[in-house]
Amino acid sequence: MTRQAISSYKQELLDTARTLRQQIRAGEFTSTTSGLASGLMQGNIVILTADWAQDFLHFCQLNPVSCPLIAMSRPGEPLLPELGKDIDIRSDVPEYNLFVDGELTQTRTDIADLWNDQMVTFVLGCSFSFEEALQRAGLAIRNIDLGRNVSMYDSSLATTPSSRFHGNTVVTMRPFSPADAIRAIQVTTRLPKAHGAPVHIGRPDLIGIDDLATPQYGDSVPVHDDEIPVFWACGVTPQVAIRNAKPPICITHVPGKMLVTDKLNDELAIL
Amino acid sequence: MTRQAISSYKQELLDTARTLRQQIRAGEFTSTTSGLASGLMQGNIVILTADWAQDFLHFCQLNPVSCPLIAMSRPGEPLLPELGKDIDIRSDVPEYNLFVDGELTQTRTDIADLWNDQMVTFVLGCSFSFEEALQRAGLAIRNIDLGRNVSMYDSSLATTPSSRFHGNTVVTMRPFSPADAIRAIQVTTRLPKAHGAPVHIGRPDLIGIDDLATPQYGDSVPVHDDEIPVFWACGVTPQVAIRNAKPPICITHVPGKMLVTDKLNDELAIL
Repeated sequence: MTRQAISSYKQELLDTARTLRQQIRAGEFTSTTSGLASGLMQGNIVILTADWAQDFLHFCQLNPVSCPLIAMSRPGEPLLPELGKDIDIRSDVPEYNLFVDGELTQTRTDIADLWNDQMVTFVLGCSFSFEEALQRAGLAIRNIDLGRNVSMYDSSLATTPSSRFHGNTVVTMRPFSPADAIRAIQVTTRLPKAHGAPVHIGRPDLIGIDDLATPQYGDSVPVHDDEIPVFWACGVTPQVAIRNAKPPICITHVPGKMLVTDKLNDELAIL
Repeated sequence: MTRQAISSYKQELLDTARTLRQQIRAGEFTSTTSGLASGLMQGNIVILTADWAQDFLHFCQLNPVSCPLIAMSRPGEPLLPELGKDIDIRSDVPEYNLFVDGELTQTRTDIADLWNDQMVTFVLGCSFSFEEALQRAGLAIRNIDLGRNVSMYDSSLATTPSSRFHGNTVVTMRPFSPADAIRAIQVTTRLPKAHGAPVHIGRPDLIGIDDLATPQYGDSVPVHDDEIPVFWACGVTPQVAIRNAKPPICITHVPGKMLVTDKLNDELAIL
């Protein structure tokens, strides 16, 4: 690409992201952000009050593969200028889940009326970023090709607990030929802020998964006879830890309906 | 390590290598070089006459994963100063195989009487280098721990032919837990001159291997119930291509009995 083409590529993405966030802010877009503004990093969202935030921050630091922290706000600050200058976390996620004492009580498109000066926002990296990198490397992502959500499973891989936050790792699964699985490991190793390399490969039984056809979250995706399943840590892991910790209030995104940022995936890649 | 410790680490390795080559040159050492001068690159050797060398060079260029070329001499030149200033390829390999018309006819410890001004030496990278890197990364290599040669198999993965040189890829197999297999892929990706990343993982049947317990070359190495087999391209691949090409004369090392160079493995690593 010429310098001009690169600059126009990024500007086009930023324009797409800004337009999308405006629609989301206006309540006009409430669907999954999968495949939208592809090339820009999307984020998992966790909002807690300050008295719970330090424990959760420590949980993220102890479990950087499932909880790769890309931003954290000061208490009460709804803007995230480091991820996009117009981002307001109270309105810029297509749909929010409200957890009260660890239980999902409500889904909504705006949280302005819940916001207060104690609220701390965490933005965690998302596998949508590495799916884009895999596709650019020429690999086919089965769930995308089938128009389905990725398969997610409760694994037996324990997270490292921090105070009240604990639980097992939730993993996503994508099937690949063995040669493509090796390439997928190389490509995703570059993206530690989007869960990085897989945590497991080839043998679901060894991480407590009895039946690939019945994921606990998302959709079922077929694994062909000449393929092996490849497992990555998933951003749903913190939601399990939150259910276990039972904070009085916690707000997250609805899985698949992410915050679209202005950061290029490649800006957060290593190597 | 301090600068002094690093310098003394390298000097100690070079002294070990020089002493070993002196013993080999004197015919006092004819065993495998596995685990010796660990940290220095060892090489597979192929010696052909100049009229066959161009085809073989092209074969290496077309198949860089199984045949990673690290040095090539001019015709008739027995020294390889770029790999070690005292190396004389006519005497510095513990044991040589002599192939006549593609058939193994003789094993010997010196080839001075076979040398002539048409001889061209190829040095190809060797998996001993990545085994050292895997061990430094904390991974256990089963065949080393058991004191056995690595298991090698004729796979169904075709090489890209060049004129008379053709054949399938020979692969080595090392068993790992899924998590260690992922780490092994990352570590060996850094070493393309030592076969690099694996070519296959987890499903021997997909590359024409019916029984892991009966390798075509080397020793059998057990795969535990909670492990998956990981396959790398192997430096025996060119020997298969040479058997198929049937050059009037070809000299190789005896598998496992390699040329020990003065190059640090890390000097040939990428990243």
